[in-house]
Amino acid sequence: MVESWSFLDTVEPNFRPLVVIELAKGTKEETIEWFTKRIVDKKANGGAQLLVKPLGTENGEENIYLVGASQLRLLLGAETVGLVKECNDNSMRTFTYSSRKTFKGFAGDNDNFLTIAECQYIIKHELENLRAKEEKMIPGYPQAKLYPGKSIVRRLLTNGILVQIFPLHDGEELKKLRHSWYGRVKVGYQPLDEIRCYFGETIALYFGFLEYFTFALIPMAVIGIPYYVFAWEDYDKYVMFATFNLLWSTVILEVWKRICAIMTYRWGTLLMKRQFEEPRPGFHGVLGINPITGKEEPVYSSIKRQIRIYLVSLPFVCLCLYFSLYVMMIYFDLEQWALDYHEENESTFSSLMLFVPSIIYAVVIEIMNRIYRYAAEFLTSWENHRLESSYQNHLILKVLVFNFLNCFASLFYIAFVLFDMKLLRQSLATLLITSQIINQFAESVFPYWLQKRHKKKMKKRMYSMKTDTDMSLVEQVNLEKEMGTYVGTFDDYLELFLQFGYVSLFSCVYPLAAVFAVLNNITEIYSDALKMCRVYKRPFAEPTANIGVWQLAFETMSVISVVTNCILIGMSPQVNALFPDSKMDLMLTVALVEHLLLAIKFIMAFVIPDKPRDIQIKLAKLEFESLEALKQQVRAPDMHSSEK
Amino acid sequence: MVESWSFLDTVEPNFRPLVVIELAKGTKEETIEWFTKRIVDKKANGGAQLLVKPLGTENGEENIYLVGASQLRLLLGAETVGLVKECNDNSMRTFTYSSRKTFKGFAGDNDNFLTIAECQYIIKHELENLRAKEEKMIPGYPQAKLYPGKSIVRRLLTNGILVQIFPLHDGEELKKLRHSWYGRVKVGYQPLDEIRCYFGETIALYFGFLEYFTFALIPMAVIGIPYYVFAWEDYDKYVMFATFNLLWSTVILEVWKRICAIMTYRWGTLLMKRQFEEPRPGFHGVLGINPITGKEEPVYSSIKRQIRIYLVSLPFVCLCLYFSLYVMMIYFDLEQWALDYHEENESTFSSLMLFVPSIIYAVVIEIMNRIYRYAAEFLTSWENHRLESSYQNHLILKVLVFNFLNCFASLFYIAFVLFDMKLLRQSLATLLITSQIINQFAESVFPYWLQKRHKKKMKKRMYSMKTDTDMSLVEQVNLEKEMGTYVGTFDDYLELFLQFGYVSLFSCVYPLAAVFAVLNNITEIYSDALKMCRVYKRPFAEPTANIGVWQLAFETMSVISVVTNCILIGMSPQVNALFPDSKMDLMLTVALVEHLLLAIKFIMAFVIPDKPRDIQIKLAKLEFESLEALKQQVRAPDMHSSEK
Repeated sequence: MVESWSFLDTVEPNFRPLVVIELAKGTKEETIEWFTKRIVDKKANGGAQLLVKPLGTENGEENIYLVGASQLRLLLGAETVGLVKECNDNSMRTFTYSSRKTFKGFAGDNDNFLTIAECQYIIKHELENLRAKEEKMIPGYPQAKLYPGKSIVRRLLTNGILVQIFPLHDGEELKKLRHSWYGRVKVGYQPLDEIRCYFGETIALYFGFLEYFTFALIPMAVIGIPYYVFAWEDYDKYVMFATFNLLWSTVILEVWKRICAIMTYRWGTLLMKRQFEEPRPGFHGVLGINPITGKEEPVYSSIKRQIRIYLVSLPFVCLCLYFSLYVMMIYFDLEQWALDYHEENESTFSSLMLFVPSIIYAVVIEIMNRIYRYAAEFLTSWENHRLESSYQNHLILKVLVFNFLNCFASLFYIAFVLFDMKLLRQSLATLLITSQIINQFAESVFPYWLQKRHKKKMKKRMYSMKTDTDMSLVEQVNLEKEMGTYVGTFDDYLELFLQFGYVSLFSCVYPLAAVFAVLNNITEIYSDALKMCRVYKRPFAEPTANIGVWQLAFETMSVISVVTNCILIGMSPQVNALFPDSKMDLMLTVALVEHLLLAIKFIMAFVIPDKPRDIQIKLAKLEFESLEALKQQVRAPDMHSSEK
Repeated sequence: MVESWSFLDTVEPNFRPLVVIELAKGTKEETIEWFTKRIVDKKANGGAQLLVKPLGTENGEENIYLVGASQLRLLLGAETVGLVKECNDNSMRTFTYSSRKTFKGFAGDNDNFLTIAECQYIIKHELENLRAKEEKMIPGYPQAKLYPGKSIVRRLLTNGILVQIFPLHDGEELKKLRHSWYGRVKVGYQPLDEIRCYFGETIALYFGFLEYFTFALIPMAVIGIPYYVFAWEDYDKYVMFATFNLLWSTVILEVWKRICAIMTYRWGTLLMKRQFEEPRPGFHGVLGINPITGKEEPVYSSIKRQIRIYLVSLPFVCLCLYFSLYVMMIYFDLEQWALDYHEENESTFSSLMLFVPSIIYAVVIEIMNRIYRYAAEFLTSWENHRLESSYQNHLILKVLVFNFLNCFASLFYIAFVLFDMKLLRQSLATLLITSQIINQFAESVFPYWLQKRHKKKMKKRMYSMKTDTDMSLVEQVNLEKEMGTYVGTFDDYLELFLQFGYVSLFSCVYPLAAVFAVLNNITEIYSDALKMCRVYKRPFAEPTANIGVWQLAFETMSVISVVTNCILIGMSPQVNALFPDSKMDLMLTVALVEHLLLAIKFIMAFVIPDKPRDIQIKLAKLEFESLEALKQQVRAPDMHSSEK
């Protein structure tokens, strides 16, 4: 073991700060000492065996620490988290330290074998796996209870002693990434592999999906343009467009799975074994025995959780949905009232009044979405899910259902109750375009402006008191710790999901929606890239093999859009003219076509394999090898006993 | 290694015959010698290390051999095939010879640790894994080519040198099983665990499903009886019955998954790792390199197979479906003609003529099903699938689609084109009941009678020339080798599948169908049990964790039945009377209800977990343990390197 890993030696020349730990101001000395000791302590003593160094600011604030690790430590950590890397024979394998020489790009103490994002992920993993031994509480904070096996960092976070942990940006790398991502004016793909190296797989996959989705919408947009330009209103053209759209949306979602498999295979996350999930930070319960691990940890009855979900959350969500519909009805009443008012006394004021209801409704929708989001987060956290993944799934489900209704209910009402196609087209266009503009502004432009102002202020302050040589690092840390935290891809996917709804649900009424979606997504790529690189703290990389529950959400949307489009086509006057005598025949035909389309969709989803053939073969090869290895293991005692 | 495993020592006193090998009459001496040598040869020399003994008949026919194995060999084989057994701490673990002491019921050379079915499965596995080494052909048969790694037994089978391999019945065990299964008159569950021990998991799972399905139909039957008795024809009662049926069928299919998981967990197959699949016997191709194993084996281009599937098989199936519909139309024409004839000249002859069309149609359907079955088998085998599982899936799909159409097309036509509910009810009852009677007879009673006659003849012949002391074994082998081969659960599941169709597709028209299904299934259990125990050769056990593609087939049927029932209810005069003014409103309501029911179905299938909670915990525990074990393995070099 290299001796330089002890606490005192951390100020070694080759210390490279990777992660920043910010403790609360005024944290007790003994706590800091105990915590840093645990971080640098040897693995055998229950430590994380990392390097730690206080950020030496002149004003003596001892609350910010930089964490790094030796190259050897990182490689061993890569083995612990189960990273999958490419071997010299081009196959992907789980990295182990003992077989390190067989991996591509490994050359002794090569720094570039692990990407910085991976190094930071390893450090985060090691910090989170720092576990209490005999400690009954955090030294200096008797109210912060510990039990054997409890993650120290999570307890420090929940008790507010630890303010945040975040990975540092890497100026040079970021510059390179920015340049190849959005720095130069060019038409082409995003540098997804570079994004993945810098931000990790989850974010790279989001940008990959955004790009893929934009390309996938182009055929729809191209076909949609002539409908607008030539004002085509023929029955058969509409039906063709809608049919194409519906089948196309199935194809693109299936093909995405294949592309996703190709990417994540290359990145190694497709093969990465799922780690055993820890209880999430907010989880609480009576201390008991986990039936799976056999270790002591808080236990919460599943039946109690089910009761909370089905008897409290579900009714609450239904109530909210009802309330949202109620508000919508008020909006339509207001709209009618404004129309009547305008017709009675026509004036400039009255024509302005026409816009008032929709403005009010838009504002109310936005407010309701926000309030509901908080309520959903509160409720889901109160449901006390043990795992972060199950918490996320329940939260996403709640938010999705509400957002879907809140955004599309008025369109459904206009389409299927008022039967007003002109109004539907108009509302759809207004909603789509305004929501896109607001989103782009609220998400990227505004925070970017804020961030720029803040940076300027910081720089001024820094320059006014420049003393140290290593100032740039101090400056960087101080700047980054004030940056906003990127809370995850949830909102970005939600935006895409709602956009997909606008494009596909009523596609046969408003073919131009795809054009706007494409235009929006092109700028979205740039504004999201700007947001990631300039506005937010660097997020920790999160290995992932797919876009998870969003795949299901998009597929559900495409099923719903089959139903809506079939009804819309059935209601169109052109189609009605084809069945002049019998509405029955019309309805039957529409129902038949709808069921046929749904059946085709399901068959297509079933027939198109989720992984391309070469990836399937590679995966089968790995499985075969592991089976063979197992057989060898089995055969070893076999041979042994046969030699007896 | 014990020396008694060599060829000459096989006539040891404790040799217990488990499997019978029947070679073609007149097989060359050198081939027999080579083959038996390979069977008894040591593992290290590429043999199977089993025991083999010719069945000494007096007439000098040297073409039947008995295969057995020492207890040690069987235990090592259990490890090779990856059997999962219960440990002393009640957890299920993959058996390894080195950890044998930790398993429940293991006591030294305990014969009962492995069931006979497992022993026979192991021997089959070992025989099939006898692979050619340097041999270029089978000695004595230059046309039977071999290449390194080719399974010898499969080549012998395809060349007709090996007639059959089958496991022997065990008289005593069979007697016990028969007694507890159907020997005494009792009401209760089947002895599924005993069936599984004797016949293996696939067959036990079929009987488990049959029993479960029968119980699941009882509520439908109970609710259906009053509809018949009181001749209820109210709208709301019909709707209630149909709604109950539709939701119920979802519930039973979901609950079956859970019950199946409980059973297969207990049997160990839920945890059993899938073995790497060999090419199926009929698979042929140019000798090439398998991209997965890297070994030499026949290779067949996937694109060629796709072309055969989509350009030949698919059009052929469509043509057959069209032909089946065409025949149906002829039947309806005939029916009409007979009716007209009867009306014109009413006589005894003319009223008899009324039955002629349906009799002809029933016969034609039966003939078409048979011919199609052969065609499907031929086509699927011509598609040249590499794996038995993929061959089976394609065959099942082809047969299912055709059988579905052939059996239900006339009912669909009566219901949705002729709108004749009376006729529908009548046809449904006739079809269901006659098909049940024919099936029971053709499947069990007739073969049983044949078998009994054959046995008597054999016994007579045997008694007339009794010479040996060990005659009972010779007699048993000779008797069993002439018995029919049970080709698998396909036809049994198909029968249940069609029955499920009769019960659920038109359940709201004929609620009594469930009653007949229950009655049929109760006798079906007994007749199938009789068939397994008395009529057929004992089949090899086949470990399986679920009913495979049948689950999907039943679920698809229940989705289709939602659609049909909704339409039927929408067409009923009672419901039509509720919407006297507007057919539109009626249709909209029906469509809405249908979509709601489908949505509820999918949500229910999504919400009900496929495995019960305790099984989930047990599986998670095993996964956790294997992850921990992996970590220990990882930590070992870690420690090692840190001590350097």
